[in-house]
Amino acid sequence: MADMEVMNMVSSGSYRPNFNLLLLILLQLGLKLYTVGGMWPLPQTFTSSTERYPLNPQTFYFGYGGQSAAQQGCSVLDAAFKRYFSLIFPDYISASVVLRFNEDKLFTLEITVDHNDCDSYPNEDSSEKYNMNVSARHASLHAETVWGALRGLETFSQLVYQDDFGAYFINRTEIEDFPRFPFRGILLDTSRHYLPVQAILKTLDAMAYSKFNVFHWHIVDDPSFPYQSRTFPDLSSKGAFHPMTHVYTQSDVRRVISYARLRGIRVLPEFDTPGHTKSWGKGQPDLLTPCYKGGIPSGTFGPVNPVLPSTYRFMAGLFKEVSSVFPDSYIHLGGDEVDFSCWRSNPDIRAFMKKMGFGDFTKLEAFYIENIVNITNALKKTSIVWQDVFDYHERRSSLSVVEVWREGCYLCEVRRVVKAGLKVILASPWYLDKPGPTHNWSRYYNVWPLAFTGTEEQKKLVIGGEVCMWGEYVDSTNLNQRLWPRASAAAERLWSDEKETSNVEKALPRLQDFRCKLLRRGIQAEPLYIGYCRHEYQGV
Amino acid sequence: MADMEVMNMVSSGSYRPNFNLLLLILLQLGLKLYTVGGMWPLPQTFTSSTERYPLNPQTFYFGYGGQSAAQQGCSVLDAAFKRYFSLIFPDYISASVVLRFNEDKLFTLEITVDHNDCDSYPNEDSSEKYNMNVSARHASLHAETVWGALRGLETFSQLVYQDDFGAYFINRTEIEDFPRFPFRGILLDTSRHYLPVQAILKTLDAMAYSKFNVFHWHIVDDPSFPYQSRTFPDLSSKGAFHPMTHVYTQSDVRRVISYARLRGIRVLPEFDTPGHTKSWGKGQPDLLTPCYKGGIPSGTFGPVNPVLPSTYRFMAGLFKEVSSVFPDSYIHLGGDEVDFSCWRSNPDIRAFMKKMGFGDFTKLEAFYIENIVNITNALKKTSIVWQDVFDYHERRSSLSVVEVWREGCYLCEVRRVVKAGLKVILASPWYLDKPGPTHNWSRYYNVWPLAFTGTEEQKKLVIGGEVCMWGEYVDSTNLNQRLWPRASAAAERLWSDEKETSNVEKALPRLQDFRCKLLRRGIQAEPLYIGYCRHEYQGV
Repeated sequence: MADMEVMNMVSSGSYRPNFNLLLLILLQLGLKLYTVGGMWPLPQTFTSSTERYPLNPQTFYFGYGGQSAAQQGCSVLDAAFKRYFSLIFPDYISASVVLRFNEDKLFTLEITVDHNDCDSYPNEDSSEKYNMNVSARHASLHAETVWGALRGLETFSQLVYQDDFGAYFINRTEIEDFPRFPFRGILLDTSRHYLPVQAILKTLDAMAYSKFNVFHWHIVDDPSFPYQSRTFPDLSSKGAFHPMTHVYTQSDVRRVISYARLRGIRVLPEFDTPGHTKSWGKGQPDLLTPCYKGGIPSGTFGPVNPVLPSTYRFMAGLFKEVSSVFPDSYIHLGGDEVDFSCWRSNPDIRAFMKKMGFGDFTKLEAFYIENIVNITNALKKTSIVWQDVFDYHERRSSLSVVEVWREGCYLCEVRRVVKAGLKVILASPWYLDKPGPTHNWSRYYNVWPLAFTGTEEQKKLVIGGEVCMWGEYVDSTNLNQRLWPRASAAAERLWSDEKETSNVEKALPRLQDFRCKLLRRGIQAEPLYIGYCRHEYQGV
Repeated sequence: MADMEVMNMVSSGSYRPNFNLLLLILLQLGLKLYTVGGMWPLPQTFTSSTERYPLNPQTFYFGYGGQSAAQQGCSVLDAAFKRYFSLIFPDYISASVVLRFNEDKLFTLEITVDHNDCDSYPNEDSSEKYNMNVSARHASLHAETVWGALRGLETFSQLVYQDDFGAYFINRTEIEDFPRFPFRGILLDTSRHYLPVQAILKTLDAMAYSKFNVFHWHIVDDPSFPYQSRTFPDLSSKGAFHPMTHVYTQSDVRRVISYARLRGIRVLPEFDTPGHTKSWGKGQPDLLTPCYKGGIPSGTFGPVNPVLPSTYRFMAGLFKEVSSVFPDSYIHLGGDEVDFSCWRSNPDIRAFMKKMGFGDFTKLEAFYIENIVNITNALKKTSIVWQDVFDYHERRSSLSVVEVWREGCYLCEVRRVVKAGLKVILASPWYLDKPGPTHNWSRYYNVWPLAFTGTEEQKKLVIGGEVCMWGEYVDSTNLNQRLWPRASAAAERLWSDEKETSNVEKALPRLQDFRCKLLRRGIQAEPLYIGYCRHEYQGV
């Protein structure tokens, strides 16, 4: 608390001698002074005062606290300091030439973390808690992990604002913050349209601004197979839209994972089977079920063929590779929307059903998924499945995490899943592929994920939620506009205290302000309604 | 026809000795040869053959025909040659260093125009007709005006395609082309959101690619007044979102008009009154009607005050300036959606009504508009009004052009207007501010502007149509995605032969191809559905 004493000795007037004069001119011009902008998502608890301190890019620096387990050389934080310097001082041209001409006027943001987890990956148990204290010349940020420190840096960057002359300020603030849910994801679909790696990286940047922490990579599906597999290169060379330009190489994937890690974001790969696999069939013969018509093969193919041993050998090989390429302990197995008509048409499938005593096709699907779950369990991965699998499955105890996506009473489904003792990720209310204004931000804000009857224990099984951006009508031309700022509405629901953030009217000006911040950071976030930002998007 | 003889002597094999070898490799790689892409909008008549000629940026040049009325130094065409060189050869890095190492292999695109209108502005009577003949080493483009030549250059650029190795080709083609309607516009709304000048210029570029020829600039409205007037500077200094950054200076406006002219696009300004004028009131005291509540002024304001002589003095001054700033002979006076409740509340207005013997407020509105039309008539401008004015007006003979915008049976309204002998611009079916997929391109394609009962003479009064991009939810972050390629669907309806372009399924692949061309040209056109472009949008 020594800093507090220092703070009282320094007035903004003495710091910038001409400030009062400038203020006078400012008022005569009739311009409004910019005040502190809103934070998004709202921290759990904070107090801020109108007492403000000037910040100067020439005399601002990040430092590690003496007690910090991480020190200079910590990859995650060193990179974050560089990134956040530019975000805090958007007008500052060169961050490399820092002239510290007067030691008296230094402003230090001092970070202390309890664990040196600089070289690890964020995971489902990572603490993202932090607390922060901003006073004159000094701010201290404390977190258990580097991931928590990243969240605090983001909040700090949102506290800084500029006046009309471009001078930077921050108000005296105290914050204690932590996420409501540990899983806050965004799904991108790179099969219906290929997204250039740059578009994914940009999304990771924007995710960090809203404190999202999981990138759910729905990497392959019916239309294309862009994942370039080491073990099965034909999958992409024959199944991608283009074998050279529309693929994710191993190096691309590593780049995405590394970029995400530096922002505290997990990369959760989904290889959805047995449905949604048309593109797989091009590069992997005999994988898909041949459909029959009039007693003979029709030439078309259905879901993965669950009756051939070769199918499971292939899947074991693929998931072995995928498990080593993607470090996260979770893996998404899909399992949604399996069309039984092709299985039904196929005599080999019917014979297998008879042999196994499966009365209907949901049993066959459960049999298939059970095998895949066993494969990934053996690889020490926690599997996530779409709700369809839970709905059909009898041996639910083999499942771990269920993602609820269907419309209707989705909380009824959430309740059923947690009653079965399984974890839930809620996606239903956050399908953002449909555009505004019919699907505007308030629809995604007015979601109450725990508004079902259940015990505290059961509610804890709701580990979070996910924004889904399916790719039928979305590619790199319109991804950012469709995600932002609407995804931020979901982000606040998943991070902040529901009681403090349940009023749409109260949230609107703060979200508008945050959307302007996104524009300033180069994210093409679309407007909420009539109005303007001080710095409009110019990158046309 | 001397060129035809030359063409028969040159085979693509002799031109590129290694071509057959390359072709062999190509086929062995299993890659598809790219064939000629679709043109959009479809020319009125064309024949093309599979006979193709290589094009080489090093040996390609534009030239003026000996009989051409325009020669080197023609601003419009000289600038167009530069622009289209880059569009025709998108991979070519530097157009300035052209090495013409072998005169034998030159390919010339020779332009001949009948009129030297290089320094004029396009107008409502400008011919856009052209014909073009592409043969080996030579293409000839003939047009009556430079504006027609621009349309032909656009078509030529769409005929050129690349194979997988980046080599350029064009097929033997003959085209005779002209627009179905002379007025093919896009409305941008710069009041609900400010659009940076760059965003407007980019839209003008994209408009030219779809052969649009009118930029309807809905420059001011209720939320903001960004037009910086010489005569009344307070209008923008008090009425714009920001007096410095969110305004169009005289120089900005000149730049837009000049940029549009070089692309054969007219700039039609709209200063909408007497409604939609809230922002005007901030910089022009006594312009708006004070609303009353309980017998006293409520402090709010309604439409322009039509009973004060000062109103008409102000309007005469403003329109005098606007008429000199915008060279087009058309001016849009608005006149839509006037709310009578404020007029009704005001005792001065009611007294005036009584004095004039006006039974209802439509009479007052007609009186107001009549005065404004007289002002612009005296300035030698043809006025356009929204349909509301036509609907209320009794002395319709003073009107010239009516823009039909309301939903419902818009062709019924079109019929009423042409029966009254007035010209029509159709906008109703082309409101593109609502996004896809609910409002997808086919909705804008399946429009039949002349499908009403009327004489040939009456149908000629339908001078064209207009895409409206209102700004409630649109600014520079999402303008391009929302316009393209959906506006192109309207463009084809307004340019091409309806009989040849009435099938959505037939048009789809050509539009998909055109959308990929737009991406290649840096226009963020959104996808129509699942699929890909060879060159995806990378500018994230």
